[in-house]
Amino acid sequence: MDKQDWIADDLKYVWHPFTQMKQYEGDEKPICIVKGEGIYIEDIDGNRYMDSVSSWWVNSLGHAQPRLAKALYEQACAIEQVIFAGFTHKPAISLAKKLITLVNNRLKHVFYSDNGSTAIEVALKMAYQYWQLKGKASKKKFIAFENAYHGDTLGAVSVGGIDMYHKVYRPLLFDIIREKSPYCYRCPCGKEKEHCRLECLQGVEEILKARHDEIAAVIIEPLIQAAGGMIMYKAEYLTKLRELCDAYRVLLIDDEVAMGFYRTGKLYAYEHAGIVPDIVCSAKALTAGFLPLAVTLCTDELYYAFYDEDKDGLKTFYHGHSFTANPLACAVANENLAILQEMNMEEYLKPKILAFKRGLEKFRNYPHVGDIRQWGMVSAVEIVKDKRTKECFAYEEQIGKKIYSAGLRRGVLLRPMWNCMYFMPPYVITEEEIDSLLRLAYDSMREVLG
Amino acid sequence: MDKQDWIADDLKYVWHPFTQMKQYEGDEKPICIVKGEGIYIEDIDGNRYMDSVSSWWVNSLGHAQPRLAKALYEQACAIEQVIFAGFTHKPAISLAKKLITLVNNRLKHVFYSDNGSTAIEVALKMAYQYWQLKGKASKKKFIAFENAYHGDTLGAVSVGGIDMYHKVYRPLLFDIIREKSPYCYRCPCGKEKEHCRLECLQGVEEILKARHDEIAAVIIEPLIQAAGGMIMYKAEYLTKLRELCDAYRVLLIDDEVAMGFYRTGKLYAYEHAGIVPDIVCSAKALTAGFLPLAVTLCTDELYYAFYDEDKDGLKTFYHGHSFTANPLACAVANENLAILQEMNMEEYLKPKILAFKRGLEKFRNYPHVGDIRQWGMVSAVEIVKDKRTKECFAYEEQIGKKIYSAGLRRGVLLRPMWNCMYFMPPYVITEEEIDSLLRLAYDSMREVLG
Ligand SMILES: Cc1ncc(COP(=O)(O)O)c(C=O)c1O
Ligand SMILES: Cc1ncc(COP(=O)(O)O)c(C=O)c1O
Repeated sequence: MDKQDWIADDLKYVWHPFTQMKQYEGDEKPICIVKGEGIYIEDIDGNRYMDSVSSWWVNSLGHAQPRLAKALYEQACAIEQVIFAGFTHKPAISLAKKLITLVNNRLKHVFYSDNGSTAIEVALKMAYQYWQLKGKASKKKFIAFENAYHGDTLGAVSVGGIDMYHKVYRPLLFDIIREKSPYCYRCPCGKEKEHCRLECLQGVEEILKARHDEIAAVIIEPLIQAAGGMIMYKAEYLTKLRELCDAYRVLLIDDEVAMGFYRTGKLYAYEHAGIVPDIVCSAKALTAGFLPLAVTLCTDELYYAFYDEDKDGLKTFYHGHSFTANPLACAVANENLAILQEMNMEEYLKPKILAFKRGLEKFRNYPHVGDIRQWGMVSAVEIVKDKRTKECFAYEEQIGKKIYSAGLRRGVLLRPMWNCMYFMPPYVITEEEIDSLLRLAYDSMREVLG
Repeated sequence: MDKQDWIADDLKYVWHPFTQMKQYEGDEKPICIVKGEGIYIEDIDGNRYMDSVSSWWVNSLGHAQPRLAKALYEQACAIEQVIFAGFTHKPAISLAKKLITLVNNRLKHVFYSDNGSTAIEVALKMAYQYWQLKGKASKKKFIAFENAYHGDTLGAVSVGGIDMYHKVYRPLLFDIIREKSPYCYRCPCGKEKEHCRLECLQGVEEILKARHDEIAAVIIEPLIQAAGGMIMYKAEYLTKLRELCDAYRVLLIDDEVAMGFYRTGKLYAYEHAGIVPDIVCSAKALTAGFLPLAVTLCTDELYYAFYDEDKDGLKTFYHGHSFTANPLACAVANENLAILQEMNMEEYLKPKILAFKRGLEKFRNYPHVGDIRQWGMVSAVEIVKDKRTKECFAYEEQIGKKIYSAGLRRGVLLRPMWNCMYFMPPYVITEEEIDSLLRLAYDSMREVLG
């Protein structure tokens, strides 16, 4: 089959996620990738693209990483999958042990599932049932934030706060308490960064004070609301939020699906805030982006609330997926953790984080750049129509899409969200590659905005 | 590390799905599997167990199947994962094309996701949004069945009908219309099989007649309500249900997660009924049980409702997971389909299905066997306290658990649900192995029940 046939078949048979398929009636077609290496992916015509989004924020050690491929194969030749109730296997045990050791035993137990959304569903159900089991049946509600994204299953959608994705499903969602997004650049309290006293947390404090008896947990993306547009906030916000949760006896669920595994420069983003959440969800880079696998970590307090003689089955956490703790994915995750340790990832990333910081400076004076923000290996440039008023380009102007196309022509996969252009490459990107990524991004933006 | 250490670590760090962890304070510990081959899994002490449940109904071609391991490795060396919006890859395209060809183009499009639960979430959201886009905003409700199981994410839980698993989460679930389970052995209409005129469908007919304007879709497990206790019903029920859905313009969502890929002797269970659903969900054996991967297949009618210029983004199906259409899982699924075809699976299974039918006869006269049922490669024996009254053993008597332990001592993994002992082995089981499986199961049952 030649190239045209593959693309024609794709468009005939495949319905792509988050995609209006009619757009492909135009000249731009889906790009068929046949190979990957390091930060590059290569299409059927031999064109190479810098994967500046780590293929939806999953890849960390580069594409087709040979050690991970080998670990996968060896596991597949031993045992590829086994029922995880009544049975267990070494890859899942080692991985759980390492994950708990890595958080210094401050979280104690690992519940496996298949992807980011299911890790969130597990967290929500666990937190909810916890209070039921503790005899606080009234604690049924969750606090979540504007601009939050926690996945696409309906539990995760319920706590999500992006209207474009979530609104249409409203009648299928449960009610939550929605709080302000800690969007520093567009402060919901009208403050400037320098004078901020975390006023945006006041709403949370008030609601906790008034209604903590009804509230099971707060769920939040740590430091960065990613899908909401790489909205970044201060670590102190998390520190304060933890204090509030403690004060009002409400659980803190930390969604590290996108930020976990060194994306912000530390293993988990919550470490920047010096806190420990009650529940941590992690996925994506857990397998270095090879395979879907997720974990929900929790404290002893949660675990032991479910631990009982349980004559009637009511204290069991009835959640599970067929492939829970898939040995193949666990084997890859174990090899990933070994590599991260050998590379001394936190140190390894420091010069790269600096290279981004330096390189982003060139965007500062560009008239349509409203904000530049960075947390570790994630950085973002918010594009505005008017720098002074912070007015956005309208949806119909399709700025993001145009920059995407301009990037592709330059051999770089940029995938701006709304008016937010961001960089989140595999960690193996070199400093030279960071410079060239930023240069290509700058050129792409200028091509579109003049 | 020796055996005890692995198990100690497991119990310290891992929270197993659907498991009351306190049970492991007793003598029975989780079994640590280190290897698999064909229908056998082998533990750390070298004990082998016949995997009669296909490791939660996923495995079809045997464990650690070498061709699948090889396909996996080759793909991992080329490209392991790539963002699936704007980009595509050959493994996903070939797989989608084959899946559509296999249903004779009567379903037309493939939406990928990660597991059975997400395939259901996709189906529910798609069906719901479809009617919104068609201007029938009132069609928001789903009909689902007692004893149904569709997964553990909260959308899937909402349509589930097993109180033990689902009830505690009630306030987080959306409202659905619950209909009777087509449980022939315990007919909800008090009929005997011979005189059945599908009376149990009358409720569905009445509700469709009265409220079709409010109803988006009916969701059902075809032929077998699996997690509900391998409850089986006639193919005509599905045929009639399809007619009702047509008559009242309601979508039919067919959950083939457990039954797809030849479990009932045909590729999909719906084929036995001579119908075509509007939406088909499939997972588990799609990768022969190697890796999590799911598809939701749909008609042109659904697809084109979302296909539009879409200036405001409202006609896009905003659903996706980071690992959507993971190339590794797709490569394994492609190899699986190739093997299924080479083996001529439908023919290959016929003698095995007969071997089960024959072998099950020995259970018939046992005083505590209330019902024997079979659809293809799934068979079940329902154990009762009293054959005449069909009275069940009480939950506390833990009949299922005892049979499980008795089975393990004999080297067979049986996993009765409630009082239902079932057999659902990998397809590569031989006729001799079927005989010995049934003999061991019989002996295990007798050991427990006398
Ligand atoms: C913060 C966050 N949570 C959850 C998810 C959902 O993960 P998945 O796509 O694997 O379902 C994502 C995915 O982007 C995410 O960014
Ligand atoms: C009929 C049916 N639907 C959906 C599911 C959920 O699939 P998963 O466990 O992969 O989430 C299952 C799992 O057993 C099932 O049997």
